[in-house]
Amino acid sequence: MSAQTETRFAAEVYGRRLERAVEAMRAAHLDALLITPGPDLQYLIGSRAQSFERLTCLVITSDGATPAVVIPKLELASLAESAAGELGLRVLDWVDGVDPYQLVHSTLHAGSRIAVAEAMPALHLIPLAQSTTGLPASATPVLRRSRMIKDDAEIAALRRAGAAIDRVHARMGEFLRPGRSEAEVAADITAAIVEEGHTAAAFVIVGSGPHGADPHHEVSDRTIQNDDVVVIDIGGPVEPGYFSDSTRTYVVGTPGKQVLERVALLEAAQAAAVAAVRPGVTAESVDAAARTVLAEAGLGDAFIHRTGHGIGLSVHEEPYIVAGNDLVLEPGMAFSIEPGIYFRGEWGARIEDIVVVTEDGAESMNNRPHGLTVL
Amino acid sequence: MSAQTETRFAAEVYGRRLERAVEAMRAAHLDALLITPGPDLQYLIGSRAQSFERLTCLVITSDGATPAVVIPKLELASLAESAAGELGLRVLDWVDGVDPYQLVHSTLHAGSRIAVAEAMPALHLIPLAQSTTGLPASATPVLRRSRMIKDDAEIAALRRAGAAIDRVHARMGEFLRPGRSEAEVAADITAAIVEEGHTAAAFVIVGSGPHGADPHHEVSDRTIQNDDVVVIDIGGPVEPGYFSDSTRTYVVGTPGKQVLERVALLEAAQAAAVAAVRPGVTAESVDAAARTVLAEAGLGDAFIHRTGHGIGLSVHEEPYIVAGNDLVLEPGMAFSIEPGIYFRGEWGARIEDIVVVTEDGAESMNNRPHGLTVL
Repeated sequence: MSAQTETRFAAEVYGRRLERAVEAMRAAHLDALLITPGPDLQYLIGSRAQSFERLTCLVITSDGATPAVVIPKLELASLAESAAGELGLRVLDWVDGVDPYQLVHSTLHAGSRIAVAEAMPALHLIPLAQSTTGLPASATPVLRRSRMIKDDAEIAALRRAGAAIDRVHARMGEFLRPGRSEAEVAADITAAIVEEGHTAAAFVIVGSGPHGADPHHEVSDRTIQNDDVVVIDIGGPVEPGYFSDSTRTYVVGTPGKQVLERVALLEAAQAAAVAAVRPGVTAESVDAAARTVLAEAGLGDAFIHRTGHGIGLSVHEEPYIVAGNDLVLEPGMAFSIEPGIYFRGEWGARIEDIVVVTEDGAESMNNRPHGLTVL
Repeated sequence: MSAQTETRFAAEVYGRRLERAVEAMRAAHLDALLITPGPDLQYLIGSRAQSFERLTCLVITSDGATPAVVIPKLELASLAESAAGELGLRVLDWVDGVDPYQLVHSTLHAGSRIAVAEAMPALHLIPLAQSTTGLPASATPVLRRSRMIKDDAEIAALRRAGAAIDRVHARMGEFLRPGRSEAEVAADITAAIVEEGHTAAAFVIVGSGPHGADPHHEVSDRTIQNDDVVVIDIGGPVEPGYFSDSTRTYVVGTPGKQVLERVALLEAAQAAAVAAVRPGVTAESVDAAARTVLAEAGLGDAFIHRTGHGIGLSVHEEPYIVAGNDLVLEPGMAFSIEPGIYFRGEWGARIEDIVVVTEDGAESMNNRPHGLTVL
């Protein structure tokens, strides 16, 4: 497969991640990590396994044993698509009637202190925890640093994702017109997200007119009117599973003076936050950079959410760019910068890029014009 | 909205479900149910909320207090689409910076014994469990009977879902032809699933030739050959969230004698299992009815999975139609009957209907011809 379509990275990439996980687990005085399907499993072995009622679980122990995968026999084919074979993992497959939780416990020492993937559902967590010591810990602190700091292969994937969603925004004039419903526009955007290189559309927000004032509005049957301000927040995964996420604000017709002025302020706030990104500063200082611009212009109350979220194999992951987060940024961290302003019952605007922290600043994965785009 | 497109049932339907949940919780000596987004939340209040890193949680206590919903302020609009307002639920909204787990604890008495939704991720379960008594229990036993026994509104939704997926199978000749890839066929089926009334395609399996021998094969770039046997297993949700799931086996060209004979046996096995369904018999006896037909014909080893799974707001839920499950069937239970036969490296076949237990037998939601369909 070409680099554009590779469904997973080289086995050595996953091998390094597993090694780092063992080191971090030892430092945290944990004996085992239990990782069920989700972004952690995808990160560690490149497996796209889905979470089902039947247990699939990667078991990594701190004693140096070869990691094991407990997996339903029916799902063995999906495991073959991962790097499990090249990594030499032990495969413990099971069929209906076998107790898979006992199979996991057979790989652990008595009294093991375990940590579990955040995505693990209670369905599996409760039976797994019943014969270990106390409530399991979260595996997130163990994997946090490794997952937050993207390696070169991951940054390349985020660049491909960013370029793909930029191409969709560049085509917005094809889709967004007065007289069409938000749902019709969203259907076209969904198709374009796939056409431009994503494996799927993960989310499509078309917030027209007053709907733009609700940051989590998705789509509706509302017909787009002349001169509507429209928030378009879209994204999806590209191989091997890394997400795009970019928002631009459009006007279909002629923008009013207040809209122009306020969106220009929002653009300045977004740019200020991007300019604040560099190694050594805190996540909350980036949030403050955007917030200060809007507050000084009297729009502080209109910015009702955090500035951003980390991104990678999950649309939302650490680091969160939010007041109170004193995490110090390091090269390789990837997150959104997406201030917004919302005027209930009237209109809203949001501008969002994904950025990656570099040695001395930030590289933006999204490069479409940031200001109000008049269609 | 019309009955065809209602996105939730009448508030009284949810009111009855909440009452039953409280009764069952008291009988189980539990003090509170904590229900995060997923099918249980959809079942109890009609909410489509998605699970995010920000906590949304319905809290139902056994002390007679009004149930509460802890929800991010950003998600309030999604709650308005549920029956929460008509049900008079207490809404405790929170903004970034507030500890939502404390908000949940503020609704509980000290030392409460809690049960959590199976879908609750460790992300939320671990902090919620840290200040309650011991490891939480699963809410599934409390909700099991209520969720398993479908009411009239649910059965009507399952009928609409079944009819919609039958219409897709009826069109298979448009899609499935030699020279096309499984992926091309699947893309057309995906569109047809939506065209015929589903809100999305949840799964599309096109298992052609040797791929049909893997029950969990999805799709590939394999080109369909003349005379291939092809397993098509498809489904998706219809409003307000109930799933279809139906499998038929096709041949594109001329079937061989062995294929004809074996698929006829499989058809007999599937029919025997459907005929075995009635109130008072066990789930495992239905599994045995299909298995016996195949075993007596020497094909027992080719049937490598359980006979079926419950269905409703989840594609897979209780009751499972599997050896060892002595659950006694009752009117209103809904599940798949889907025996299959698999010949590694050669071909496979599966026939699947959703059935609902009636007062004296079973009603099938799927009514396309069951035998090998020659295209």
